[in-house]
Amino acid sequence: MALVFPRFLTSSLSLASSSSPRPQIFASSAPSSPMDITPRKYTDFPFVSAPHRNLMVDLVSTMENRLESQLKPCTLPSDVQYYYTPSGASHGSLYIRSGHSSSQVDFVLGSWIHCKLPTGGALNITSLSAYLNASTDAPNFLIELIQSSPTSLVFLLDLPPRKDPVLYPEYLQTFYENTQLESLRQTFEKLPEVQPYYSSALYIRCLTSPTSIMIRINTEGAGEGRMEEIIKDHVDPVAKEALRIWLEQCACGHRSVDEAGKAYLEKRDGLIKNKTIEIDIGSSFPRLFGPDIASRILEVIREAYNG
Amino acid sequence: MALVFPRFLTSSLSLASSSSPRPQIFASSAPSSPMDITPRKYTDFPFVSAPHRNLMVDLVSTMENRLESQLKPCTLPSDVQYYYTPSGASHGSLYIRSGHSSSQVDFVLGSWIHCKLPTGGALNITSLSAYLNASTDAPNFLIELIQSSPTSLVFLLDLPPRKDPVLYPEYLQTFYENTQLESLRQTFEKLPEVQPYYSSALYIRCLTSPTSIMIRINTEGAGEGRMEEIIKDHVDPVAKEALRIWLEQCACGHRSVDEAGKAYLEKRDGLIKNKTIEIDIGSSFPRLFGPDIASRILEVIREAYNG
Repeated sequence: MALVFPRFLTSSLSLASSSSPRPQIFASSAPSSPMDITPRKYTDFPFVSAPHRNLMVDLVSTMENRLESQLKPCTLPSDVQYYYTPSGASHGSLYIRSGHSSSQVDFVLGSWIHCKLPTGGALNITSLSAYLNASTDAPNFLIELIQSSPTSLVFLLDLPPRKDPVLYPEYLQTFYENTQLESLRQTFEKLPEVQPYYSSALYIRCLTSPTSIMIRINTEGAGEGRMEEIIKDHVDPVAKEALRIWLEQCACGHRSVDEAGKAYLEKRDGLIKNKTIEIDIGSSFPRLFGPDIASRILEVIREAYNG
Repeated sequence: MALVFPRFLTSSLSLASSSSPRPQIFASSAPSSPMDITPRKYTDFPFVSAPHRNLMVDLVSTMENRLESQLKPCTLPSDVQYYYTPSGASHGSLYIRSGHSSSQVDFVLGSWIHCKLPTGGALNITSLSAYLNASTDAPNFLIELIQSSPTSLVFLLDLPPRKDPVLYPEYLQTFYENTQLESLRQTFEKLPEVQPYYSSALYIRCLTSPTSIMIRINTEGAGEGRMEEIIKDHVDPVAKEALRIWLEQCACGHRSVDEAGKAYLEKRDGLIKNKTIEIDIGSSFPRLFGPDIASRILEVIREAYNG
């Protein structure tokens, strides 16, 4: 999850800098109503707009329908599938399904988090990613929507490469040129509300493909409902097309990988996972959920990564 | 040269689609005055604005002063150091100095081209790049300014990595995090005239570092002289600081490279050079200068690349 977790957002929410060292985060915000801790599951996406929720639900169901026979059920404990801080200010859901040993899918990982902001608004992050194993070198899949206000959305969509495209130009051609992913990226260049988004971590920037969509959508000053319109008319169809390409060309395509290729993939995949935890979610999760919840969630993610 | 040659510009100037198949390119434009074919050298930068010329002259002299004892003189034939089409519409200069065998510098390559456009304007490209050899794995240096009108400039500045940063995170830290190159890139985010620039070739995009500056500056509608102001106040100091970092940390730093590392660098460097010629300058040069001049210039570049 949160392959490119937005440190610019979470740093301002740091628990470490709070006078209250334990999970009573955002103690200054009003206590939540009992409704807020009604058990929720990953596919509820309970705190986001309808177009945002519909997109995520459609992506999860498309992915699961296509890969169903390859995936084991989600067996995470209930306090990982849904977790929240005692104050009720922060909620999250984690969802992992591993692939059967015969599948090219290593695991599929979905997540949402919702954190009330001291300013009165809320941070909502929804993500879905899929990792393939070393029986194929095809790219992974990642989508993430990070909404920090009704008028501000960071949208990340990519098929992150699993080989150095500089050293393997034919890889670039197969998965990025022939698939016309660039035309999806260009869709957003025409929208005046769109600016490029740069992760503050340089390592995270290096993980993306040359056709990755890494943008910040700002609808401040535009009419009400413009963000929902952009999600429905632009984010939704582009994300679905990218997932269709990934399912056909990557998850369900065949690639022959020799022993040396397998070792290369295992080394590179492993490094990415370790570095991602180290520099990204490993520091942002404790800030948002406190050390106890964070260590519970991170342990599960580490297990999936090292599966 | 022209590591990221702008195909969006040169494709509109294609000789291939012209009815005149030989070097009489831009036959529709007015013949040049005799002054236009006065022999010129690389450091003249004769067709660009004063701040643009001053920057390039300063960069070349800074690089040559620092590396002087390591570089052989430029021994290119005079019709490569300065070349032009019979109509006088297109001029160019190429400048290459190889490093001595004891140096970490493979070669330094400078170039400018000036092509009259059918629309009455001109395309001016100035570039300076430096390639290190396999005795070090430190990044190369590249700067390129592509001016297609008085109000439109593409500015490319990078220390292109020579190893996959995903697989070598300590490489990223040494050359990109510790050097604070990111702060140089961020300088341009604040200017309203600046937009990101994407090479149309995905392979070229993959060659850049996470702190590369790849921007298009558009001053249309701004006051006269705004482009020169941006070059003088922003492009100039940033380019000089990047060159200073490169000279200190890369060209004159020490890195130990074992035999396996050397083989990796030679393979990756070689691939980049071959692909760059194949997809980039190999197709743009014939379009701009016709097949005869292009083959003369490209042969020299190929020799430098494979030397």
